[in-house]
Amino acid sequence: MSEEQTIQTPLWVQELDKYKASKPIEDVAADLGLKPEDIIMLVANENPNGMSDKVKEAVSKAVFSLNRYPDADSYHLQKAIAEKYGVPQDWVVIGSGSSELLGLAAQTVLSVGTTAIYPQYSFSLYPMVARLCGAETIEVPATDDYNADLQAMLDAIDSRTRLIFLTNPNNPTGTYLAEDDILQFLDQVPPNVMVLFDEAYVEFLEPALQCDSVEMVRRHPNVMIARTFSKAYGLAGARVGYGIAQPELLSLLNRVRHPFNVNDLSQIAALAALKDQDFVKKTLEVNKEGIKFLTEAFDQLELPYMGLHANFITVRIGSHADEIVDYLLKKGIIVRRMRSYDLPEWVRVTVGTPEQNERFLEVLKEGLNKFGE
Amino acid sequence: MSEEQTIQTPLWVQELDKYKASKPIEDVAADLGLKPEDIIMLVANENPNGMSDKVKEAVSKAVFSLNRYPDADSYHLQKAIAEKYGVPQDWVVIGSGSSELLGLAAQTVLSVGTTAIYPQYSFSLYPMVARLCGAETIEVPATDDYNADLQAMLDAIDSRTRLIFLTNPNNPTGTYLAEDDILQFLDQVPPNVMVLFDEAYVEFLEPALQCDSVEMVRRHPNVMIARTFSKAYGLAGARVGYGIAQPELLSLLNRVRHPFNVNDLSQIAALAALKDQDFVKKTLEVNKEGIKFLTEAFDQLELPYMGLHANFITVRIGSHADEIVDYLLKKGIIVRRMRSYDLPEWVRVTVGTPEQNERFLEVLKEGLNKFGE
Repeated sequence: MSEEQTIQTPLWVQELDKYKASKPIEDVAADLGLKPEDIIMLVANENPNGMSDKVKEAVSKAVFSLNRYPDADSYHLQKAIAEKYGVPQDWVVIGSGSSELLGLAAQTVLSVGTTAIYPQYSFSLYPMVARLCGAETIEVPATDDYNADLQAMLDAIDSRTRLIFLTNPNNPTGTYLAEDDILQFLDQVPPNVMVLFDEAYVEFLEPALQCDSVEMVRRHPNVMIARTFSKAYGLAGARVGYGIAQPELLSLLNRVRHPFNVNDLSQIAALAALKDQDFVKKTLEVNKEGIKFLTEAFDQLELPYMGLHANFITVRIGSHADEIVDYLLKKGIIVRRMRSYDLPEWVRVTVGTPEQNERFLEVLKEGLNKFGE
Repeated sequence: MSEEQTIQTPLWVQELDKYKASKPIEDVAADLGLKPEDIIMLVANENPNGMSDKVKEAVSKAVFSLNRYPDADSYHLQKAIAEKYGVPQDWVVIGSGSSELLGLAAQTVLSVGTTAIYPQYSFSLYPMVARLCGAETIEVPATDDYNADLQAMLDAIDSRTRLIFLTNPNNPTGTYLAEDDILQFLDQVPPNVMVLFDEAYVEFLEPALQCDSVEMVRRHPNVMIARTFSKAYGLAGARVGYGIAQPELLSLLNRVRHPFNVNDLSQIAALAALKDQDFVKKTLEVNKEGIKFLTEAFDQLELPYMGLHANFITVRIGSHADEIVDYLLKKGIIVRRMRSYDLPEWVRVTVGTPEQNERFLEVLKEGLNKFGE
């Protein structure tokens, strides 16, 4: 077919790959000849403790009228988050997962001829949403310990830069950034460049290491925090995230956002989850125990691992990583390969329940024995 | 503040207005000193019959695990829709409302230097999503009976055209297009130009007037149908829509779409709604009766109205329309002004339940008497 015969798309659409999501658990089980309940999903950094019972209760009992459009701005949830963080309500935006907010940030500031900067070893959606706006992406090499190289990122800024992605703690490396370093960094970013400060995993960071990101937003009108209900709150399936930024920035972002972007049931679920901080506390405890258990085992096995500041561990299992991941898969345990990050000897494993962690370790050891080091 | 002090955004973001959504019913009631149950919402073409009981049941009973990400492609819902329309599953895409699909269509084909064409008197989101991509928008004047002027739209196509929006039946005019006219139109659109054929209200069109839009998709690889669960299915609050197009076009659109764009609960709700065709049937009956009742009254009052092929009527109430709408509002009845369409003497009223229609008419008559014509 000639060019005139087919739909014409911008160059960047042609160059994009479709995001490769994990298969649904039922499909994976069927492929392997296993039952869905035999599958251990340690691949998407979901909450192994399920969701809060309060959420289930709230959704079942809610007197909802789905025939009406949802509140266009998720008013009640927005209000609850504003109160939690002590900011005015117009400093808060609710998104369909924090991933929607990443896309909206890109659409707000990027276009052809501009650039977005992000660190090596970070969330694959950053370059995707930037390229979708026709922007160029600049991946800044990480430090030797797999962390964002803040000085190198500053050096990469030029007159075309409009957006910087920074994550704390970072996925997939589990590293974190010290408050002083972030503060110094933000002071040096030109005020006309937006910084998307992605804190999807921040609840897992030890309180002593957490920075006052809301204060950073107060000081910097160009900074937006993005957080999510998908991880510590156990609501990945509800698709709710939130952003905090000054109203001038949010008024721009809200022009780009579709109204009614978060449905009624998800607003109800997130509100219930926000109120059940005991569930979050339990999640953090289970995660901490799991990290202790897994790292002690990795130490014994002499497997190096990266940062431990989130709900996953990225561990180097050696040159036979692919075969070992395949072996884990055959046994119903799904972990994330790191080949797309140019780290073919590493895998990222979500911290599971104690039983899941034990089973993972058992099968990992079998794999290591089988395929050697 | 100098330009360097503030976030730099593309020109089109600066020029965009935030979509003005209706206020939540509780807020409207509070503003008016009324109770929420006293408010009659005839403003957003929602389903006055509520939602299917089967949906409520499905959502309350579903064994859902919101801690897991939803199926990235809404697999089960996609399958059910493919079966309903007799197309392969990869001809179907599920969106967060059909409004997300409009935005995705725009992102798939538009960029700076291209144009999108849409008819006068059509959904305000069409120019919004197109401008968001930096594209120019061309609004083609309607025919004298407020319908899309298909010949004029064809004449507006040039080498920069990438997207055409067409709606059937149309909002806010209630007009419809005959199958032969659409077929002739599509035959003349260059195959490299995408046509977004928006059928949000198609269920309300008399079966004899409905065209075989799936067959149009079979014949034209550049056509995508967009439909929604928000109207006839009574699920505006769940945000679910679907698109049907050939896989080559959808493979492009799916690169632009965020994975997990529809959450678990909404997938459950839409599947239950799709199975309850009795609810849709009842909805169509109530709507037909309501149109009969309202148009008989409008005829008596000598108020002209536009097409009657959807779940609303756009009616000319005269030069005091603004005062009359304010009067209706004071009495708790909310209808849509048409001033933004340059039709200041008209209002669009959603067809309600028999009781709502009667109450609307009663207060409308009071308003007409009070402010005269």
